[in-house]
Order: sequence, then C-alpha cells, then structure tokens
Amino acid sequence: MEGYPPGKGTCPIVEMSKKYWNNNIKNMMPYVPGFQPELKDNLIKLNTNENPYPPSPKVIEAIKVSTGDLLRFYPKSDWEDLRNAISEVYSCNLKQVFCGNGSDEVLSLIFRCFTNFGDSVLFTYPTYSLYETLAEISGIDYSYVETKDDFSIDFDVIKNTDYKLAFIANPNAPTGRIEPLSFIKDFAASFKGLVIIDEAYIDFSDSPDGFTSLNLINDYSNIIVLRTFSKSYSLCGMRVGYAFANEDLISAMMIAKDSYNLDLLAQAGAKAAVLDQDWMKNNAQKIINTRKETQQKLISMGFEVIPSQANFLFATHPDLNIKTVYNELIKNNIYVRYFNKPRIANYLRISIGTDNQMGILLGKLKYICDSIVR
Amino acid sequence: MEGYPPGKGTCPIVEMSKKYWNNNIKNMMPYVPGFQPELKDNLIKLNTNENPYPPSPKVIEAIKVSTGDLLRFYPKSDWEDLRNAISEVYSCNLKQVFCGNGSDEVLSLIFRCFTNFGDSVLFTYPTYSLYETLAEISGIDYSYVETKDDFSIDFDVIKNTDYKLAFIANPNAPTGRIEPLSFIKDFAASFKGLVIIDEAYIDFSDSPDGFTSLNLINDYSNIIVLRTFSKSYSLCGMRVGYAFANEDLISAMMIAKDSYNLDLLAQAGAKAAVLDQDWMKNNAQKIINTRKETQQKLISMGFEVIPSQANFLFATHPDLNIKTVYNELIKNNIYVRYFNKPRIANYLRISIGTDNQMGILLGKLKYICDSIVR
Repeated sequence: MEGYPPGKGTCPIVEMSKKYWNNNIKNMMPYVPGFQPELKDNLIKLNTNENPYPPSPKVIEAIKVSTGDLLRFYPKSDWEDLRNAISEVYSCNLKQVFCGNGSDEVLSLIFRCFTNFGDSVLFTYPTYSLYETLAEISGIDYSYVETKDDFSIDFDVIKNTDYKLAFIANPNAPTGRIEPLSFIKDFAASFKGLVIIDEAYIDFSDSPDGFTSLNLINDYSNIIVLRTFSKSYSLCGMRVGYAFANEDLISAMMIAKDSYNLDLLAQAGAKAAVLDQDWMKNNAQKIINTRKETQQKLISMGFEVIPSQANFLFATHPDLNIKTVYNELIKNNIYVRYFNKPRIANYLRISIGTDNQMGILLGKLKYICDSIVR
Repeated sequence: MEGYPPGKGTCPIVEMSKKYWNNNIKNMMPYVPGFQPELKDNLIKLNTNENPYPPSPKVIEAIKVSTGDLLRFYPKSDWEDLRNAISEVYSCNLKQVFCGNGSDEVLSLIFRCFTNFGDSVLFTYPTYSLYETLAEISGIDYSYVETKDDFSIDFDVIKNTDYKLAFIANPNAPTGRIEPLSFIKDFAASFKGLVIIDEAYIDFSDSPDGFTSLNLINDYSNIIVLRTFSKSYSLCGMRVGYAFANEDLISAMMIAKDSYNLDLLAQAGAKAAVLDQDWMKNNAQKIINTRKETQQKLISMGFEVIPSQANFLFATHPDLNIKTVYNELIKNNIYVRYFNKPRIANYLRISIGTDNQMGILLGKLKYICDSIVR
C-alpha cells in the first residue's frame, strides 16, 4: 500500500505574502469544485451531479411560509423538527441523527472531532477529492489505497489496517460503483478507527434499502453514515447534509459544531423534503431509468461504462481522446466533468439529466465519434 | 498577565465512552448559547440580542423570489452578487470581503487558517465566550487578560504581547463598551499576530463610521474586521456573517472554507439586506433611542449601567441579588441573560426590545426592587 497524493501541487494563488497563514493552508492545493457556467436556457449542465428535476413543491411552500418576521430570531440549534422528521423516516433514534450545512460541514466536523495532530486517515483511489482537501486543511496525514482495475475497492488490502478514519463513498464518486453491504460489515469489524460511509448517491442505487449501511450503526460503534439533501432531494442550493451514527459519536459532533449551523429556512425546507419520500423516490426512479438507457446507448457507441449505482456515469472510449471530447462538448454548451488525474484521465463523468438532455448529449457524442477522431 | 479560563469545567455529557473523540473535544466545555424559549405571544425575549424589528421587506421578497427550481443547482461558491453588494456599500475591494455561515463560521475559519498546533491566542475578559470554545475545539492555548474595573480594555497590558491572534469585540459583549479607534490602531501596530475586531454590534453605536476599524484594513496587514447580518439587519435566522481584511488574509479563508458555505437563499437575502441601508439604519436608530431611555430609567431605579454602544445593556444593582431578579423575570415570561462567571455574576445583560417590551420589563424591575429584596 502506497501513499498516493493525486491532488498535491503548488498553490495557485501567487503574490501573497502568506505571512499569517498556517502551515496546512500555506502548502495545500484547494479543492476544485465543478465549473459553474452561467445558467442559460440552452445550457446542458451534467458536470456536478445536480438533480434535473425540481425539489418537491412542499419544500418550496415550507420555505416561503417560514420567510418572514421569524428570521429575526435564532434558529433551533438542534434542528428539532428536522431531526424528528429524519429519525422517523429513517427509523432511528433522534440522537443518532446529525445535520450540517451540507455534507461538507459534516465531513469537516468529523476531522475536527475524531482526529488528533499526528493521526493519519485512509482513502481509496479514486474517490471524492474533498476528503483529501479536508485532511490537508486539518493537517492530518492520509494514505490512498488503489482500487482494483475495475475500480472496485480492494477490501483485502484495507482490512485490518490501522488508521484513525477510513472514508468509503458508496456508491463511489466519480466511478458510481457500489460495494456490497457484507464487505462493508467485514471491513468495519476489522478496522480499529472510524469508518465513514458516504451515501450521498445511494438513493439512485437499485436497492437503497439493501445497500445502505444505515442499520449497522446500532451494532457497530465505529460507523458513520453520511447522506445529503443535495442529490436525490434536488436541494444542492440549500446546503443540508445529515449523518447517522451511535449517540456517542453524534454527541462529539454536537459539541464541536457551530451553535446555529443550519438556518431557519434550510431546516424548514429539508424537513418538508424528507417527509415527501414519494417525490424523491419518483425522481430517483426516473433518473435510474435514464441512466440505464444512457449506459446502453454509450456502450453501443463503443464506450466502456463502469456499472453505476449513482446519478452519473463514468465512461471511457478506447478510440477517443476523452479530453478532446470534453472540450468539444463544451463548445456545444454541454458540460460534463473531466479529471486530469492518474488512472481516470481518459474518463468522463456524466451526470444524468432529463431524457431530452441525454438525447442531445448522445447525439453530440455520436457526431464526435463519427467525425472528429476516427 | 495570567491565563484565566472562566469556561473550563467537566463536560456535562456523561455515559459516553468517548472512545473515538479527539483530545480537544473530550476535555472541553461546550459553548452555551442563550436559552431559546418557545416563541409565544406574551413572551418578552431579551436574552440573545435579537433585533425587535423585522428584516427589510426587500429581504423577504428576495428570498421568496429565489425559492424555486434554482434550488436544485449549487449556489455560487464565491457569493458573487452578495460580495459585490457588500464591497459597494462598504467601499472596499471585492477581494477584501469574506462571507460565512454566520460569524461563527468565520471565527472558526480564522482558527483553522491562522493558528498552528502549539500556538496561543489572546482574549480580554469578559468577552464573547465563543472565542474560547473555538480555541478549545481547535486545541489552541489561550490567555485571558482582565479588563479594567469599568470593563474597558487595558491596552497597556496587551500591547506588544506575542500571541498568534487577539480578539477584540468592539463594542464588547456582554458589556456593550466600545474602544476608541486610536487605541485599536496603536494596539494593532504593536502586535505581532492578527487582530480580530468583532464589530457584530457596531451599527448600534452612536457613530459606526467613527468607531469602525474597517478603514484600517488597507494600512494594517494584521487586522480582520467581523460583521454580521444577525443583529442590525434582523437576520439571526439566516446565518450570514462577513469579514473585511486585506486580500492575503481573505485568500487563506477562501481556500479553507467549504466550497458552498452559503446557500442560495442566504446569499439572496443578505444581498437585499445590505442594499437596504435605510431600513437597517432606521431600526438601529430606534434601538439606540430605546437603549438611551431604558438606561436612564434603570439608573433612576438605582441600577449601575455600563455605558453601552450595542443593542443591549449590562447592569447591576448594589442592593439586589441579580440571580434572584433574573429568575423572577423568567416567572413573568421575561427572558434576559445571566452569566454565572467571575466579576459579572451580579449583572444582567438585557437586549433592547421595542419600547413596549422595555416598558413591561422596567415595570417588573420596579416591582421587584420595591417588593422583594428591600
């Protein structure tokens, strides 16, 4: 197992004295989110795994109702109503639920609460690069363990290792691969530190109930399961992430969080969202259907597509320079995601949009395949 | 100068194994925000310095207009429109502005960006106790320097000291005292580390433009000025804090912050708020007038009141047990703030409400003075 730092590099900000910057920030490479083009009518934005369908009308209504004089008061610091709703819908104890200003804040708090100076943590490669960014901000060492050739996690290699934290995105990003629950269980049982299962995309799997590690939190004291309202609930703009774990772990995060980390409207909107399961599941099913269809069509055009259980596809093509394809698509107002990193530099990550958007994308890809590269 | 940790104590959460907790969290006393009673019609809530007047109707409108399909997209990660509005209103460069999920997040980022393991930081006593909480979460040592008997800061003692950060709330909480700009300048010039001037309450001073350290950021590379939308803009429920400093310092915070730390609605609401200066200033003036009147009446009842430039008063009474008064007020549905801490355990911090609310409070205090204690 080798330490493998794909994101390392020189900091792009120049001309700064950095006199007061601490060592972690001074030396780090900032996290680069997906490019956000101006939202125009003819734009096809498939680069940041946003949901192509709007949030529930009940969410919109709940936010509007809360928008008024009440904004002058502090919001509930323990998100009482939202927390109740989440614990009901996901059948767990109130004190096993944590809510944050996006999963980003929850992840950041996990570093703040459960690592000490000098600790090191484990990531698989490739995975969501924010984990590495947060380790660097916190001044915590990290090691990457390579996935197998098919991008599945090599549990034989990570089992029984000795790290403070291990991060498993399941389904993984940017590959879309999901790992069976039995592997997660085995791994957690063997691992001394905390296992963070990031299930941001699990509602897009064929069987969220079958794949989720949610029910493990009662039996495993070292598992934290992360979820988000951004993807399946169509609320990227609202910034609400949540987590499940035993009360002991959640208590630490309650101490370390900002007192009022979720504003009034986020609490109201997220509560309405989680209570409208039909809306979420209906959209997720549409996206799953579109994903399956898109995957078939890509394969028929000669693409190799990693089996995805998320709202995106990770695809390469033996005869194409994918970077060129990526740039061609941008010229046509179609944005997908490209990572210039080891092992994945000839892959595109394509978020699943509407059937109509995918039709336009596939048409362009067909045109590119036929005309430019061959 | 002595280290002085008023908030230290045993952690109130028991029965936890804390097996995975890091040392900082394991040993700390959590920050205790002001008690939030259920909001009822007859409640007089003067305990958390909320604004008694509602946010601008333009804020409400801006949030409602943004509440819709756009919520499925990520918000702008650099708060472009809000940042532009702030830099215009406060006449500074765009890159001298930072925005966070409440001042809490900004303060937390200051620790993350500008302290290394082993550093120590300086607070005055008494002051906003969150600074200490954040130091403990970050595992950073801190020292308290006592204010003078009148609670003004003893700049002679803190000048030329060698800490990584110094926090000056100006006006200070919970006292309401403000320090002249010339003292801040002198101090910053003498201090090797960063000086954080927390101006959460400055819009309630007699001369915000005269007291603010905002214009120092061009000449002093070690000053960060904090502001918030919670107090003068009546948006506690929205969680938006902002900061001014030179571009070098702001750049570090841009690297360390969560990519999307402010949601779409917070950005829209705060932008509308800062652009409606008339609304804010009009409310601030009403609060200043009420504060002056309340102060006079308290003095006439025998209270000693610290001269306040904030939206609260800090008062004691030579003949009264203030803890008893505090509890009496609660029985009458009037909530003010009491701190059981050295030097201030016989003071009440009273947020300024409407004239009507203050009238009821003063009536009760008169009754208590006359009947219970004498």
